[in-house]
Amino acid sequence: MTEAGPHTGAAGSQAQAVAARPGPGRGSAGTHPVRVAGPDDSALIGRLLHDFNQEFNDESPGPAALAERLRSLMAGGETVVLVGGEEPAGLAVLRFRPAIWSKGLECYLAELYVAPHRRGRGLGRAIMEAALDYARRRGADSMDIGVDEPDLVARNLYESLGFTNREGGDGPLMFVYERDLS
Amino acid sequence: MTEAGPHTGAAGSQAQAVAARPGPGRGSAGTHPVRVAGPDDSALIGRLLHDFNQEFNDESPGPAALAERLRSLMAGGETVVLVGGEEPAGLAVLRFRPAIWSKGLECYLAELYVAPHRRGRGLGRAIMEAALDYARRRGADSMDIGVDEPDLVARNLYESLGFTNREGGDGPLMFVYERDLS
Repeated sequence: MTEAGPHTGAAGSQAQAVAARPGPGRGSAGTHPVRVAGPDDSALIGRLLHDFNQEFNDESPGPAALAERLRSLMAGGETVVLVGGEEPAGLAVLRFRPAIWSKGLECYLAELYVAPHRRGRGLGRAIMEAALDYARRRGADSMDIGVDEPDLVARNLYESLGFTNREGGDGPLMFVYERDLS
Repeated sequence: MTEAGPHTGAAGSQAQAVAARPGPGRGSAGTHPVRVAGPDDSALIGRLLHDFNQEFNDESPGPAALAERLRSLMAGGETVVLVGGEEPAGLAVLRFRPAIWSKGLECYLAELYVAPHRRGRGLGRAIMEAALDYARRRGADSMDIGVDEPDLVARNLYESLGFTNREGGDGPLMFVYERDLS
């Protein structure tokens, strides 16, 4: 819908591509290695993000362009990628910026993806738990995510981790509004 | 709900505080001066943001702290404030960062406010139109906003300006999920 691709603004439909069965996955969540990616992980990150788009039939600039884009963003410091699993087979893309109403940071979860053959084992949850821990240690006051209504697997995961789509936890629903500027 | 205050993540309830009557306001939208704020506007911005919080009974760090925070954020370049009206009596806070899926920027409308005595005359619309124009000229591919479901005045304004809370315009609803990290 935008030139920037379908992931702009809201993490959207791709967020459903995480651990598919919270039951068996939960117990083993702690056994998945998760680490902060470095420049040497750019190619891997580009492939995972490309696969992500391919799986959801979204246009992709291609693995090489994504690798270069993420390498550049990570070098800038405000974008952090966590990779998880043995290969690694999953990632989270976090974006930080100074908050307006506090002296802390706000963190946006831009992407969360687990490769299809590694789903259902708690890898998405393990990556999210590491992301929350990383964001907290870095000084973020809050984390926010855009999620499509039908993405129940993702929504259940986020809700089980303390996220809410209601203002203040029990207030009105919060919508993402977006528009293409091109 | 977060230490960062109620505006983190989603623009939320405060976004309702814009031009209250789209009818009469629309015709005169073009007559309101709107400009990019500079360091000398920090005190004004701090007062408006403080009034914003006071009106919605949200905690505020106070006008002086907000002025200093916004002065610092504007100096960093990724935060831009537009002020509108003769006094000025309204503002938009825009935040830019590089997009992931394109080489452009993404723009987040963090705050939109019009002082109560200046509502209903199209000032909110004029500020939004200037914000869209500014973001486009700066190279943003998209703009996104967090809005609470009951904020119909704000939602109507945004929808009339081409924003949608449905993926791709006619897809599923897009939710903001957030959680406090403190």
